[in-house]
Amino acid sequence: MPFDTTIAALKSEYGDRCATSDAVRDHHANGEAYHAPVRPDAVLFPGSTEEVAQIMRICAAGNCPIVPYGTGTSLEGHVVPLRGGVSLDMSRMDAILAVHPEDLDAVVQPGVTRRRLNEDLRDTGLFFPVDPGADASMGGMAATRASGTNAVRYGTMRENVLAVEAVMADGQIIRAGTRARKSSAGYDLTKLLVGSEGTLGIITELTLRLYGQPEAVASGVCTFDSVKGAVDAVILTIQSGLPVARIEFLDELQIRAVNNYSKLSLAEKPTLFLEFHGTDASVAEQSERFGEIAAEFGGGAFDWATKAEDRNRLWRARHDAYYAVKALRPGSHGYVTDACVPISRLAEAILETKKDIAESGMLAPVVGHVGDGNFHLAILIDPQDRDELKAAEALAHRIAERALEMGGTVTGEHGVGMGKMKYMAAEHGHGYEIMRQIKRTLDPQNLLNPGKIVDLN
Amino acid sequence: MPFDTTIAALKSEYGDRCATSDAVRDHHANGEAYHAPVRPDAVLFPGSTEEVAQIMRICAAGNCPIVPYGTGTSLEGHVVPLRGGVSLDMSRMDAILAVHPEDLDAVVQPGVTRRRLNEDLRDTGLFFPVDPGADASMGGMAATRASGTNAVRYGTMRENVLAVEAVMADGQIIRAGTRARKSSAGYDLTKLLVGSEGTLGIITELTLRLYGQPEAVASGVCTFDSVKGAVDAVILTIQSGLPVARIEFLDELQIRAVNNYSKLSLAEKPTLFLEFHGTDASVAEQSERFGEIAAEFGGGAFDWATKAEDRNRLWRARHDAYYAVKALRPGSHGYVTDACVPISRLAEAILETKKDIAESGMLAPVVGHVGDGNFHLAILIDPQDRDELKAAEALAHRIAERALEMGGTVTGEHGVGMGKMKYMAAEHGHGYEIMRQIKRTLDPQNLLNPGKIVDLN
Repeated sequence: MPFDTTIAALKSEYGDRCATSDAVRDHHANGEAYHAPVRPDAVLFPGSTEEVAQIMRICAAGNCPIVPYGTGTSLEGHVVPLRGGVSLDMSRMDAILAVHPEDLDAVVQPGVTRRRLNEDLRDTGLFFPVDPGADASMGGMAATRASGTNAVRYGTMRENVLAVEAVMADGQIIRAGTRARKSSAGYDLTKLLVGSEGTLGIITELTLRLYGQPEAVASGVCTFDSVKGAVDAVILTIQSGLPVARIEFLDELQIRAVNNYSKLSLAEKPTLFLEFHGTDASVAEQSERFGEIAAEFGGGAFDWATKAEDRNRLWRARHDAYYAVKALRPGSHGYVTDACVPISRLAEAILETKKDIAESGMLAPVVGHVGDGNFHLAILIDPQDRDELKAAEALAHRIAERALEMGGTVTGEHGVGMGKMKYMAAEHGHGYEIMRQIKRTLDPQNLLNPGKIVDLN
Repeated sequence: MPFDTTIAALKSEYGDRCATSDAVRDHHANGEAYHAPVRPDAVLFPGSTEEVAQIMRICAAGNCPIVPYGTGTSLEGHVVPLRGGVSLDMSRMDAILAVHPEDLDAVVQPGVTRRRLNEDLRDTGLFFPVDPGADASMGGMAATRASGTNAVRYGTMRENVLAVEAVMADGQIIRAGTRARKSSAGYDLTKLLVGSEGTLGIITELTLRLYGQPEAVASGVCTFDSVKGAVDAVILTIQSGLPVARIEFLDELQIRAVNNYSKLSLAEKPTLFLEFHGTDASVAEQSERFGEIAAEFGGGAFDWATKAEDRNRLWRARHDAYYAVKALRPGSHGYVTDACVPISRLAEAILETKKDIAESGMLAPVVGHVGDGNFHLAILIDPQDRDELKAAEALAHRIAERALEMGGTVTGEHGVGMGKMKYMAAEHGHGYEIMRQIKRTLDPQNLLNPGKIVDLN
């Protein structure tokens, strides 16, 4: 084993918190993505930033790769330790260090998950809006520049991480950004680390932007006769500047999956899940305006979920969409992909995608944070069937290529991981070489999540 | 002259667009900042991205520095060509290349100024919100991560530049970002270039986020008996989540300056200029709520500027604040500084600053985009008087140090330039070394605006 000496050194320093059992290593061999798992040589459970820095230095001395791991819910193979080494499980660094209601921010360790943060915040009247489907960790969400259903109104991790502390490849600790709302003081290292997928540094603390819980919330469901009608309603909603808090598209197959999995009884039609935030008056005004837009595009009556309980059930169902899809075909894997296009191209992008799905013969519901121009596919495949895997790859490839042709991006929120690396040169041109130069400079030994985003070997 | 050969090569290629007259060189020796001017050896006026790339390559061959220049309105000496070489005046690359109302974005060349962009957009029903005091260019605003009065609601250049095209030090052209609203596809090179002050690349095209012109706008003025009352009203406004579009503080001396310069007749008291955007109903609701908050803190009646003409006069006066201040003491220079702190510390920061000003005996009005925790000082000095310069430096130094102590930043929007470099190590710690590594990698010859943000020599 190439890293024996390093692992032995870590074991002697960290004891039980350096796990080498098969079970723990298997658990850290992949996330939820369809990618071949690779076992790390050891899984480390650091308890502090100083320990992360020490682990980094020990790994550097032994040329041992180190792959940060949050909740293992990533969808593009980000956490697969491709070259073995250490999987750095951040779950024990899960303290909420400070909440500053007066400044609308919170300082947290990376292992805090989004649900726990919001449970903790409930009594303060504040909330953190970024909500990928899974109950992901803040560190993982920042590393993958995650977003979710609220991004159309509140932004993604890009907009909502004010500052980070990180351990760099040289074992040094940096603090990027401050608690001030804005700054022009030099290069934006916070934004460079957000979305870097653990390849430039290990995030050990985050300062997050919080928002006041809206006084009034209205959620509801609106069904359409056609996909085009639903998406065109979204486009006009965004173009008209309606400050919708959430606007989610689910196609008829996704609705069937959600009905089964989450015990709902929605009409199996192209559907929008919506939410409006504001005062009583402004929420009423927004809902009315949306109703007018929906009616223009053949939308049915807008079904309100007025009780908090019903609202939570609706959004929980939306967040569980991926699990619901997998349940459509027991034993299947979901080959998941996402793309994001300028909003004006969204209807075309989704309709062409639906055509591709039909031609492929695959089971693949379409769902999306359509207010951002972002949509997802979970293509259900039998993991043993090479032909199905190939067909899924071909389908995902068409979606990525089309997104680029439309002036969009091959991933709106899932990240690059292993799955999207092949498109980086096409999307970024010479910019990809600039990314490679940055990676080479900040991680000259190529130890931080090697083989992701850019490959130096 | 060290760059004779390079300038000769540029002259033969660009003729009149490679200016070497004293007048043109003097004009490009500094911006509006109080910093010693340095003449460039030549001023180049490129007409296209390809020309910028060619100029970059010619400069690189001759080891000749190159300093991008927009409108010359920067306040920290960003455009001073410290080591001579080429000042690259982008004013002729001033085309609005595309407006996509359906996607709420525009693609522009860097020489387009904010006023011209908004004049061009007027008929589309859209606007671009970022508005520093000067009629700056989009390239310069992006390079300095500029903000302005609307940032509290619409964000700064950080949030509103979706994509850039840039010429890098190797003479290659990159396109960072896309027209999609979000992306997780690799390192955020757009955000790295925004705020890099021409030290990492030369921005040659920008894709900007646009917003629908609000249906209803209400602007007004509210005076307070004390600075503390005014700032506390701001803090509560922000904390309560009121989506105010603009909330600007001007102290009593700034009001006197504005009255004189812009022919207004406001009470010479601590004052807030405000604006609300929305529908008729939401604007009315916001104004009413603000009125309640203001009353709690001793705010006077809220004077409305209902006519567009009166509103424009008010905001023009705010934007001209710096020129108004200089007119308070004819022949003086304004030693300008800004800082940004967490909103909860803002009253303390401004009150301590006012005390420092009083003790210094200098004439220095305080004005600020207080909704962001950002405030400015223009300290009036006689440029010939060394003692006054020293006193101004000491005053600015106290403000910067205090901002850091309060968990803030030494510049909220003016940038680093020459003036704030001395604080970079204190603000960023080891992160400053990371910035240096990035600079060294992307500009190994140190030709792009050398001596700004980080110094490699």
